[in-house]
Amino acid sequence: MSIRIGILGYGNLGRGVECAIKHNPDLELVAVFTRRAPETVKILTETAAVYSVNDAEKMKDKIDVLIICGGSATDLPKQTPEYAKMFNVIDSFDTHARIPEHFDSVDAAAKESGHIGIISVGWDPGMFSLNRLYANAILTNGKDYTFWGKGVSQGHSDAVRRIKGVKDAKQYTIPVEAALEAVRNGENPDLTTRQKHTRECFVVAEEGADLAQIENDIKTMPNYFSDYDTTVHFISEEELKRDHSGIPHGGFVIRSGKTGWNDENNHVIEYSLKLDSNPEFTSSVLVAYARAAYRMNKEGQSGAKTVFDVAPAYLCAADGAELRKHLL
Amino acid sequence: MSIRIGILGYGNLGRGVECAIKHNPDLELVAVFTRRAPETVKILTETAAVYSVNDAEKMKDKIDVLIICGGSATDLPKQTPEYAKMFNVIDSFDTHARIPEHFDSVDAAAKESGHIGIISVGWDPGMFSLNRLYANAILTNGKDYTFWGKGVSQGHSDAVRRIKGVKDAKQYTIPVEAALEAVRNGENPDLTTRQKHTRECFVVAEEGADLAQIENDIKTMPNYFSDYDTTVHFISEEELKRDHSGIPHGGFVIRSGKTGWNDENNHVIEYSLKLDSNPEFTSSVLVAYARAAYRMNKEGQSGAKTVFDVAPAYLCAADGAELRKHLL
Repeated sequence: MSIRIGILGYGNLGRGVECAIKHNPDLELVAVFTRRAPETVKILTETAAVYSVNDAEKMKDKIDVLIICGGSATDLPKQTPEYAKMFNVIDSFDTHARIPEHFDSVDAAAKESGHIGIISVGWDPGMFSLNRLYANAILTNGKDYTFWGKGVSQGHSDAVRRIKGVKDAKQYTIPVEAALEAVRNGENPDLTTRQKHTRECFVVAEEGADLAQIENDIKTMPNYFSDYDTTVHFISEEELKRDHSGIPHGGFVIRSGKTGWNDENNHVIEYSLKLDSNPEFTSSVLVAYARAAYRMNKEGQSGAKTVFDVAPAYLCAADGAELRKHLL
Repeated sequence: MSIRIGILGYGNLGRGVECAIKHNPDLELVAVFTRRAPETVKILTETAAVYSVNDAEKMKDKIDVLIICGGSATDLPKQTPEYAKMFNVIDSFDTHARIPEHFDSVDAAAKESGHIGIISVGWDPGMFSLNRLYANAILTNGKDYTFWGKGVSQGHSDAVRRIKGVKDAKQYTIPVEAALEAVRNGENPDLTTRQKHTRECFVVAEEGADLAQIENDIKTMPNYFSDYDTTVHFISEEELKRDHSGIPHGGFVIRSGKTGWNDENNHVIEYSLKLDSNPEFTSSVLVAYARAAYRMNKEGQSGAKTVFDVAPAYLCAADGAELRKHLL
């Protein structure tokens, strides 16, 4: 029998989860829950139904794991603990600083109801975190580096769009190749914000807008751009649509560390992602962890978990003997 | 209180484990067991003692985890199940094809005695396996690539040394950069053995040896060299000692796969290692898994495990809250 999945929230991430379920034959999409009027939401899976989010509770015995695809700012802090009362849940909560409190609130709800809630699943937090952990466990005497990109930052693109005279915009975060190389060479450099990443903006200006002013407003924006070397390109709306409509992302987690009685040997561990679609990759990670949540709950486990608490074998459809034979 | 570690076998790997324990303050080296006369074995840790391997059983209540540092061909298939009767054990068994039977024999012994036995720990099998598993779980529709090097292959170096007229030799396995690039670009190439790796040999010939004959013997050696493009350099004994006495290694695990309703998006996951010392890095992995074995056994678990069965959080000295705060 398949593991029955529900999706809460049908934006980029929810649609990505739907696609990922299609690639995992042991999983079945049963329901999509939406805050919109259900009849206005068209999904791709013919065998699944769309319900109002208010009807989720009625489905609690028909869904094994609910994947919550809301935003981290306001949705997930409320939704994940709330739905953990009824379902095994997974989210991609990514506000790093608030993970401890989110963990605690999901843990309390999930323990009380006897469910599993795996939070902060995706690639950062998620696969990048895992790689930081493994590398730290192995090279205890070392230094961590995380680089992001090349990829679209939604937050930075939004910030540019709010500038007067900007009609539309897309911002790319780009790691500095020289910094990456220094880290890979085991030089353990101390890098400033400016030395690690550059930012590149593609801007569609409104007619008659003051381009020099826009460029200056971008480059001097505190927090978002002022600490970076930023390049601004003005392009047409057509060019933006044609060349910058994707949502690529990726990045690098590198740890360099010493071993030996007198720290005489150096080692570099590097993990990197190059993603055509940020939300579809995140969704693919969510779906693998949904399988794990189901299995861990079946074994009698409950409470909040993160990627750190999930034994890797739970993620794959194949059993232990199969995994040892083909992947070990 | 520290986790008390024993080392069985004091070669390159055993010495590496000793160094790794020094870098993990929550672990303590208690004893080194050797097949040699104990008084002839000098170790670096002043607070630990050297015993005959025959005295291991007497120490079974004084050691929490025994790290078995023997060879995969003949030592580990006997030693790991034998010592799993008395200790939690870790090994680096790396004969991929024989892992299933080794797992079964360790599992039987460890379950019977109530211990944990984690087998095949290191980087391949080990960290490379983990990365294959995670990448397969996420990108179910994709293709795996593993490249090794640049690094010293002990087996190939030994094979060259057995050739008539060869006094000493070192062999490096080198991944082909063009193949790596094609994989990274998501081209999903089908690669022959020759297209993936080249081999480079540094040979010290005996005086008056037939160099052309040696070179031909190397290049045509079945299994070891005949399927590869091999370069042979004749150098002096001094040069070999000066330039080729290290044991570097490393490699790349790459998975490229598609997501999207119609497989329209491509993703590349890459993990790589660049190691100055192959045995010291392997040892560092062994030591992290020794911590996990101790904790899992404390929780009441027993039997054979691999890296696939160990939740990542068990590997780090820090507790869950600490890990979530700093690494997630």
